[in-house]
Amino acid sequence: MDFELNEDQRAFAETARQFAHDQLEPNAAQWDEAQSFPKDVLREAGELGFLSLYVPEEDGGLGLSRLDASIIFEQLAMGCTSTTAFMTIHNMVTWMIASFATESAKTHFCPKLLTGEWLGSYCLTEANAGSDAASLTTSAIRQGSNYILNGAKAFISGAGETDVLLVMARSGEPGSGGISAFIVPADAQGISYGRKEPKMGWNSQPTRAVTFENVAVAVENLLGYEGEGFKIAMKGLDGGRINIATCSLGTAQQALNQARQYVTERQQFGQALSQFQAVQFKLADMATELVAARQLVRYAASKLDRQDMDRTAYCAMAKRFATDIGFRICDQALQLYGGYGYIKEYPLERYFRDVRVHQILEGTNEIMRLIIARRVLAESPELV
Amino acid sequence: MDFELNEDQRAFAETARQFAHDQLEPNAAQWDEAQSFPKDVLREAGELGFLSLYVPEEDGGLGLSRLDASIIFEQLAMGCTSTTAFMTIHNMVTWMIASFATESAKTHFCPKLLTGEWLGSYCLTEANAGSDAASLTTSAIRQGSNYILNGAKAFISGAGETDVLLVMARSGEPGSGGISAFIVPADAQGISYGRKEPKMGWNSQPTRAVTFENVAVAVENLLGYEGEGFKIAMKGLDGGRINIATCSLGTAQQALNQARQYVTERQQFGQALSQFQAVQFKLADMATELVAARQLVRYAASKLDRQDMDRTAYCAMAKRFATDIGFRICDQALQLYGGYGYIKEYPLERYFRDVRVHQILEGTNEIMRLIIARRVLAESPELV
Amino acid sequence: MDFELNEDQRAFAETARQFAHDQLEPNAAQWDEAQSFPKDVLREAGELGFLSLYVPEEDGGLGLSRLDASIIFEQLAMGCTSTTAFMTIHNMVTWMIASFATESAKTHFCPKLLTGEWLGSYCLTEANAGSDAASLTTSAIRQGSNYILNGAKAFISGAGETDVLLVMARSGEPGSGGISAFIVPADAQGISYGRKEPKMGWNSQPTRAVTFENVAVAVENLLGYEGEGFKIAMKGLDGGRINIATCSLGTAQQALNQARQYVTERQQFGQALSQFQAVQFKLADMATELVAARQLVRYAASKLDRQDMDRTAYCAMAKRFATDIGFRICDQALQLYGGYGYIKEYPLERYFRDVRVHQILEGTNEIMRLIIARRVLAESPELV
Amino acid sequence: MDFELNEDQRAFAETARQFAHDQLEPNAAQWDEAQSFPKDVLREAGELGFLSLYVPEEDGGLGLSRLDASIIFEQLAMGCTSTTAFMTIHNMVTWMIASFATESAKTHFCPKLLTGEWLGSYCLTEANAGSDAASLTTSAIRQGSNYILNGAKAFISGAGETDVLLVMARSGEPGSGGISAFIVPADAQGISYGRKEPKMGWNSQPTRAVTFENVAVAVENLLGYEGEGFKIAMKGLDGGRINIATCSLGTAQQALNQARQYVTERQQFGQALSQFQAVQFKLADMATELVAARQLVRYAASKLDRQDMDRTAYCAMAKRFATDIGFRICDQALQLYGGYGYIKEYPLERYFRDVRVHQILEGTNEIMRLIIARRVLAESPELV
Repeated sequence: MDFELNEDQRAFAETARQFAHDQLEPNAAQWDEAQSFPKDVLREAGELGFLSLYVPEEDGGLGLSRLDASIIFEQLAMGCTSTTAFMTIHNMVTWMIASFATESAKTHFCPKLLTGEWLGSYCLTEANAGSDAASLTTSAIRQGSNYILNGAKAFISGAGETDVLLVMARSGEPGSGGISAFIVPADAQGISYGRKEPKMGWNSQPTRAVTFENVAVAVENLLGYEGEGFKIAMKGLDGGRINIATCSLGTAQQALNQARQYVTERQQFGQALSQFQAVQFKLADMATELVAARQLVRYAASKLDRQDMDRTAYCAMAKRFATDIGFRICDQALQLYGGYGYIKEYPLERYFRDVRVHQILEGTNEIMRLIIARRVLAESPELV
Repeated sequence: MDFELNEDQRAFAETARQFAHDQLEPNAAQWDEAQSFPKDVLREAGELGFLSLYVPEEDGGLGLSRLDASIIFEQLAMGCTSTTAFMTIHNMVTWMIASFATESAKTHFCPKLLTGEWLGSYCLTEANAGSDAASLTTSAIRQGSNYILNGAKAFISGAGETDVLLVMARSGEPGSGGISAFIVPADAQGISYGRKEPKMGWNSQPTRAVTFENVAVAVENLLGYEGEGFKIAMKGLDGGRINIATCSLGTAQQALNQARQYVTERQQFGQALSQFQAVQFKLADMATELVAARQLVRYAASKLDRQDMDRTAYCAMAKRFATDIGFRICDQALQLYGGYGYIKEYPLERYFRDVRVHQILEGTNEIMRLIIARRVLAESPELV
Repeated sequence: MDFELNEDQRAFAETARQFAHDQLEPNAAQWDEAQSFPKDVLREAGELGFLSLYVPEEDGGLGLSRLDASIIFEQLAMGCTSTTAFMTIHNMVTWMIASFATESAKTHFCPKLLTGEWLGSYCLTEANAGSDAASLTTSAIRQGSNYILNGAKAFISGAGETDVLLVMARSGEPGSGGISAFIVPADAQGISYGRKEPKMGWNSQPTRAVTFENVAVAVENLLGYEGEGFKIAMKGLDGGRINIATCSLGTAQQALNQARQYVTERQQFGQALSQFQAVQFKLADMATELVAARQLVRYAASKLDRQDMDRTAYCAMAKRFATDIGFRICDQALQLYGGYGYIKEYPLERYFRDVRVHQILEGTNEIMRLIIARRVLAESPELV
Repeated sequence: MDFELNEDQRAFAETARQFAHDQLEPNAAQWDEAQSFPKDVLREAGELGFLSLYVPEEDGGLGLSRLDASIIFEQLAMGCTSTTAFMTIHNMVTWMIASFATESAKTHFCPKLLTGEWLGSYCLTEANAGSDAASLTTSAIRQGSNYILNGAKAFISGAGETDVLLVMARSGEPGSGGISAFIVPADAQGISYGRKEPKMGWNSQPTRAVTFENVAVAVENLLGYEGEGFKIAMKGLDGGRINIATCSLGTAQQALNQARQYVTERQQFGQALSQFQAVQFKLADMATELVAARQLVRYAASKLDRQDMDRTAYCAMAKRFATDIGFRICDQALQLYGGYGYIKEYPLERYFRDVRVHQILEGTNEIMRLIIARRVLAESPELV
């Protein structure tokens, strides 16, 4: 066993850290405030390879492992949670296309997605199909060399400002086996977008509903085979869960760093807050839980890289644990700041708002528990 | 012992509930969004007596107990956390003036404060004197028939839009014994206000810094005697803590009500969320903790009403417990809503943002622990 | 509302406290060690009325309310958790007989139960009917003027050393409606007892299985009507839950008292443990949660006294909350004692072992959550 | 990075598992009940190398890493927590002697310690020097070629039945710099032992006080130099903390395994407990936290193996986290068993009693927090 970063990983992390520090952190508050989607900065991220981290090299990506990607995304999230989270979604979409698309679709979509010239959205959730994603009703009916899509997706990250939609739609019978995955140009005829959803956080990425009204999608834009869409979507989500967990880690580390700084400087009752034992204990627990969460995320990422039979359970564990811990750390860091934690002059309240959604999306933490329990009950819990 | 509301209390609660339902709830989201201070509605609250609940009847108030007031504020908080919280601060200020001001000052200020024609702000915290309030440095130097105030206050609720400031300032030696309390017209010469502080929640009340530059305050505007200011401020805070705790209770009850409604309607996996045992257990714990917190708040309020020797410890307990529980309930209600909990179309994310500050202000929950521990260690913990 | 003890309650509490201090506390460790059932001391408790607290005065009891009883039991539990818990079971049994038995059975059993000359056991649980008590299979078949009982009960407190068994058995169809309750002399022909179950705590009361083989029970020993047994058993349990919750309160108070004493005396790093802020915060939270739990228990007891429609939900809340909090406080008190908490020279480890079972019996805390959730979902959670 | 066991590690684990299954598990309940110290089985463990896991090969040990040892101890702890914990203490003592003793002492003591012919006790704690170990007062005064020891140690594992004592005593000035470490034959003239301390758990190893009255210890039995004793003791404890954390992991895994088995078999309300969602969620959280704790322990062990500058902080994190989680899992497993969890017929209550002490010894978890906080405050918390 070896738990240390190798030289390459250190170098990637350092590059990501620099980018986060220079390009993300200085703007994050303003993006949040103005709810603006930083397409320019995303394109710069693309130039550094951050939009295709685990796309195979032969497809133009960096060909890194999920573990490598987690190390990088963690650093990026220290600069801006919400923007990094969008990058992870884009990575997921791009990887899915690189992995499962026809050659012609790959040739058409990948190059521009890799660079960030085009951005991608992942369209699974519907208003009535959230946790129960397999019950989705958006339909895809074969008609000649096209599929005709009808229906609506909800809570779609980036929607309205992205270029490519990865849409899960029902091409067959009810249940997960009747779902197919399609690449759909975001400006295809018949697509309309809802209003930009005002939300508590994740404000540097727009969220909109997407409606499909007789949208024709070419057959070559199908991912894998008909009926494989749910399986493909879930494969995307294993990695997506590692990524979201990672965004919580990076944000929590940033919150802890700042809280540590604050308590060493802030004086009350004639001494620095850091002199108070209750503050010290709090910092100790934050640091401990963060390290534990990070190790679990990396462990799960390595299980995914190895295509371990239990990878889905490990990814669920990592997502559940790291997003819960991440929120708790941000909450406690905010509390250490006192009143200053509550005002927008300091970033703590943004961290707190941003990471909260990680406990909900990419499968709620309740769904994670179901996935984990299924595995524990199916076999001995010992291997887990 | 008797734990049931009496008829008067039921009637008051009903009136408050109606007001909250008609005047607060329909507007709360918009006040939050626009960060607008609803002076008109506050004045209507004043007409119903909600701005002078425990001001003695002989001074024009309703002369209710703190326990009565808690029952009422809880109902109001179900309509709008932030606006109700402001009302509680105004009540505290008005009560302090009614209780400790000279007759002439009372005559001048009380009538308009009772009706809400004037609104009041409580000015204790300074940028460098938060938890350690007794280290405040705003000075008040006697000069003829005036005190001359210099210094600055921070995080002042209502500041810039209220009419009366209740200012704690140093008129004597360092420490709590050198502090006096003054009533200061908000438009007095030499007062200037900072920008409206952007903050995570509590957006229906403005928060600003207040700077005093050679502000002359007439001697008759002194509360009590010179040097009694800190003691008076703390007396205000005992009740203030009950009130803030109460605002958390009302909001949590509202969050629980809505979550209950939501889970009975929302279907996933072919049944209502309420059919899932994990959802049921969550609701059960939310309800249980809320009832426990409410009983503790009412118990502490009754201790304050009785002027129990340990009232400060009880109020600290109630504030610590109810604001922690209140936040947890809002957090869990948000989670039950899933993605819908995170968007502004539903009120959950506002409850969550609004109640979070209750763990910080009126003395952070860490300061509450110090107060409680002091009492536990001073005597047998058994009476507590 | 009035949250203060009245004079009578104070007097009762004082008597109980004295009894606990003189008769229970000095012997509790030895009873635990030797696993001996202190029948003599129970009889002395009977002389003071502690075995018939809420049996109506006309039936020879003290005729107190459940709230009064809770106040008394709490003081007793400070002396010995396990022995007090047995007293509460005996009270429940005696009350059930006084309330639902035929006159002749009352006349026969009550007088000796009231004094403790006879002791009673509550026989509901079976090896395969724990949480799902209504699935019990011990049968009671009418045969002339007798019922003939066959089957076995498990985990029966006092069994083998008590004189009267209150047995729930199936006289009719499956489900809760087919169950009847019987008073059975403990030495009736056909009853046999299992070995004394070695257990983690509650060692001053024996626990045994009870087997019924063609045990004839006279018809006049039926409680209420045939088929009412489960309803009667549950009525007993509402109060039983208050009582068990109360035993956790008293033990937790005792643990807190002792921890407080210990930390003021124990020196490390040149000062008393009580000087360390983390210790102070811990004590503050223990005290706060204990006060909250006590208020909730009293509130539920008053609901039971008033026969409030929602009394079962309140009793479940009180039981769930107070037994969880009670265990946590004992656990934390043990931790404050460090190594001394783990050895039998000090009582902390006994408190810890004894209260642990309260989270399990009289309905596990999971069953409590089901009961509470049912109520929350049935109506508005607001009244709760 | 690589998170998987290598072949050797799998083989060692398998051997340990077999030993635990065959030699420990079948006897653990009886050892607990009878409070008997299984010297024979310890000697068998010695034959397999389990008493010298990380003693260098040149000194006759297995020369394994701390990480390897953790993997092995975890399997052993699945069989008997208390006996395995004693083995870890013995390993620590043996390692300290092998690492810091004079050649002559090594030659004398090591061979018999390696095989378990002799057993060792670690003597640091005193009645008044627990968390503040550096304040110990047992004195060691140089007299010719001996040191003369006077004083008393408390809570010494194995004392009275072991053969070798590793004693930290004050040979110089107050504070940690005045402490030296000595190897003392357990039957040396002047040593007397207190009564076997009755305790809640860890009953397969005796705990006694040890008194030194003019005990002469040869100079060659000094470890390292005079004044290095505390440093050496702390070096031992870094590993000791990994080991104790590991004992919690193994026990928790065993508890989880059994709870899983139980809930799949136990039927209530017409279905297996494992069908209830709340049970599933509980299992999921237990499994997740256990995996997280295990990864943290292994990470810390690898930091110790690498002699990482921050190893002490990592070991403290691992100890704090894994012993807290370990207890929680055993507590929840007990709860899943219901009444069966509380009786000695099943092992759950023993796991619960045994692991509880891990939160206290080898430095309480509060001391761990101080150690971690010191590191977090000294430098950026980011590397941690």
